[in-house]
Amino acid sequence: MEQLPGPVVEHLAKGQDKYVERLCEFLRIPSISTLPAHAGDIRKAAKWLLHEAERLGFKGALYETKGHPVVYAELCPHKDAPTVLIYGHYDVQPPDPVDQWCHPPFTPTIQDGCVFARGATDDKGQFLTFFNAIESILAVDGTLPLNVKLVVEGEEEVGSPNFRAFLDAHKDLLKADFIALSDGEKYRADMPSICYGLRGLLYMQIDIQGPKYDVHSGLHGGSVVNPALALSWILSRLKDDQGKVLIPGFYGHARDLEPWERKEMARLPFDEKAEAAMLGVPKLVPEKGYTILESVRARPTLDINGIWGGFQGEGSKTIIPASAGAKVSMRLVPDQDPDEIAGLLEKYVISMAPVGVTVKVTNISSNRALIVPRDSPAIHAMARSIEYAFGVRPVFTRDGGSIGAVVAMQAGLGIEDILMLGWGDPDDALHSPNEHFSLENFRRGSLASAALLYGLAKVKTSLKPVAKEPGGSHKK
Amino acid sequence: MEQLPGPVVEHLAKGQDKYVERLCEFLRIPSISTLPAHAGDIRKAAKWLLHEAERLGFKGALYETKGHPVVYAELCPHKDAPTVLIYGHYDVQPPDPVDQWCHPPFTPTIQDGCVFARGATDDKGQFLTFFNAIESILAVDGTLPLNVKLVVEGEEEVGSPNFRAFLDAHKDLLKADFIALSDGEKYRADMPSICYGLRGLLYMQIDIQGPKYDVHSGLHGGSVVNPALALSWILSRLKDDQGKVLIPGFYGHARDLEPWERKEMARLPFDEKAEAAMLGVPKLVPEKGYTILESVRARPTLDINGIWGGFQGEGSKTIIPASAGAKVSMRLVPDQDPDEIAGLLEKYVISMAPVGVTVKVTNISSNRALIVPRDSPAIHAMARSIEYAFGVRPVFTRDGGSIGAVVAMQAGLGIEDILMLGWGDPDDALHSPNEHFSLENFRRGSLASAALLYGLAKVKTSLKPVAKEPGGSHKK
Repeated sequence: MEQLPGPVVEHLAKGQDKYVERLCEFLRIPSISTLPAHAGDIRKAAKWLLHEAERLGFKGALYETKGHPVVYAELCPHKDAPTVLIYGHYDVQPPDPVDQWCHPPFTPTIQDGCVFARGATDDKGQFLTFFNAIESILAVDGTLPLNVKLVVEGEEEVGSPNFRAFLDAHKDLLKADFIALSDGEKYRADMPSICYGLRGLLYMQIDIQGPKYDVHSGLHGGSVVNPALALSWILSRLKDDQGKVLIPGFYGHARDLEPWERKEMARLPFDEKAEAAMLGVPKLVPEKGYTILESVRARPTLDINGIWGGFQGEGSKTIIPASAGAKVSMRLVPDQDPDEIAGLLEKYVISMAPVGVTVKVTNISSNRALIVPRDSPAIHAMARSIEYAFGVRPVFTRDGGSIGAVVAMQAGLGIEDILMLGWGDPDDALHSPNEHFSLENFRRGSLASAALLYGLAKVKTSLKPVAKEPGGSHKK
Repeated sequence: MEQLPGPVVEHLAKGQDKYVERLCEFLRIPSISTLPAHAGDIRKAAKWLLHEAERLGFKGALYETKGHPVVYAELCPHKDAPTVLIYGHYDVQPPDPVDQWCHPPFTPTIQDGCVFARGATDDKGQFLTFFNAIESILAVDGTLPLNVKLVVEGEEEVGSPNFRAFLDAHKDLLKADFIALSDGEKYRADMPSICYGLRGLLYMQIDIQGPKYDVHSGLHGGSVVNPALALSWILSRLKDDQGKVLIPGFYGHARDLEPWERKEMARLPFDEKAEAAMLGVPKLVPEKGYTILESVRARPTLDINGIWGGFQGEGSKTIIPASAGAKVSMRLVPDQDPDEIAGLLEKYVISMAPVGVTVKVTNISSNRALIVPRDSPAIHAMARSIEYAFGVRPVFTRDGGSIGAVVAMQAGLGIEDILMLGWGDPDDALHSPNEHFSLENFRRGSLASAALLYGLAKVKTSLKPVAKEPGGSHKK
């Protein structure tokens, strides 16, 4: 397995407390990308990151986009060494429902060996393991074993709508041999994993407009078509209770699991009862014909992420709501085209629109699914680094989540070697109240990141000349 | 037609400005019964009313209930005259959505001959026409032509949950020959009406519990049953797009319209296009087999009054919501038993509950439908009073709304003669943003109320001795 120079190991161990404090500093910035009120915090987080990178000797800048800025910085001391592009995101999910947090979501709190805060694991804590590794290597060696480029965006949690345009505008700047990121999780707390596939995401909104204002349900009940009822007619026909999506054509191009993948997945330990208990549900219901693991990691699905309309307070209000709406998103698998599916959904929804109301379908964001090659020198280096830091060989998995930026980088930069790491545990509650990150994972993740940098330095590549300076018209 | 003494007419005319100012004073109190934060305003409104009644020479008190207090006051100068019990309510609906109001909902504003405020027509403005009538009659005659009892509750907008208990505890106190109330509306602005039927109301809530917290839709989408989707499966099967309620047994005891009623209703002018335009809907959809008027006034129906769950903000949040819920209410017709229907709904909903979530059904409030005899001396007196004040003979109608208190009074006090007046216009936007009441209706309504008091005084009744003083252990 990959080895680290003893002094680097020692420096990382000594630095752990300082690195945790730095993570807490980052977590105190409520960089919620989806809420316009937090635009200032987003910028603050971006500047904080750039400042940290510059402190380590990187040169970089904030790159403006139509949305939130991208932080780019590089330290490329070698003409003849490979280059790794390390991706991360500095934005976080909204913390609501806030009342379910044990600690305030933006006041990082250490408890039971974990730091609790929104973004602790997704992705601030995981991303900073690379900073820790770089800082300790530089402290010991005075240089890096390979060229490192950092690209950290502020819109991952809203589907990276402007990241592809940024990539297209800066192809030369971002040239690299490998992409590495740690924005996932281990398969199980004691089973680190390497992710070779991601689901895609299509996020849409359905709005139903009824009367121009809320009307009295006594005076008009029986003649005015109820928008919330109309919405339920439509939503109920999007997916059945067997987990099958009912949009005509939805499964048309969906690539099914390979027989060997199903076998490999079946060998992974999975405790259905423990999972249900952790989530607090009476039963898990996979797609008919598939196991739970297959359903959540490698099959397309559909969910309602939010629904609203009319009176939501205590007690009663006798109205027919003027409008009702829902956020509807789909997880996609390879070969499903989000634009095509968006069109199918819209057509299907409009075909079900009852008379008496107006139905509108909006495409909020989307990205394709991804599968990367598993058998490459870089992937092998990653496996060795993980085994060194965590003490066990990683398993290979596909992940049910979506990282649009990774898909965009694969397509936009033409880089095949994408190293999808994950130092978090499955019960870290990312996107949920009480998100947290184990300090032990933070420590081991930093070790693994350092080992990976040494390991990748030895991989033979056909590196093209590296751009020397960040540049381009978007630079600020 | 009923005539009013000239000096009373003159006094009412001279008093109009003062009466409007008094109404505005009443409307400034945000007495929203359903919101606990407004409990203080509720009490303030009750005290304001009692004070006004006492100023006119009435004796009364606030009667505490398990909820908001009932205002009771009486002025019973005659041993041998009939007694009218005038009912009203001092509570109002919540004003939301507040951003759709042209003026602040609790800053009454006169515009285009109307006063705009929450409660303007429902029921503060309409109820005060009786006060205006009484004040002017007393100013001219020094006494009233009959005994008047006022009973004004603070929970009409939440279904009068404690009014029946109040009635049962004060049967003697409330003894009367007639009940009068103005809490409805004219059939059309130029067609005053007498209401002889009300629909009942059954208001329920359905709650779906999924995972114990919002979970990541990428990590768990495909295995966790989505509570919002489960809710839509259930709601979509409560009513079809033909206006038919699908709860098994729902129509079992529902009394259908009499052939003569259908003929009478068919003679009422109704401009479907104008109604749809007023409401801003592309089309009105009545229950299959019935006209729009029949559907909204004399047929049972079902509506979703509110629906919620998960992320409702701008943009996207990729979660499976922990829970989702809906307020579901039904309008009932005579012979439908709300308790029975509540049981049918609960059984049906639970039978549809999908595995993987927990479903709870709660009965929030209910009351039966009502039909009162149309051919009585009191009803004839009412018709003459309306014709005198508004210049046209009233038409008879059934109303689609529900006034649980009226049902409770009929059942609890055994009074058959219930005079359901309505001075408002159909487009007064009650329960909606920009509720308003025409000052001309306020004026004519006061005239009609005065005429009615004189008219009822002449109706021969078998009056029993009247209780002299408000009393009982609930008095405060």
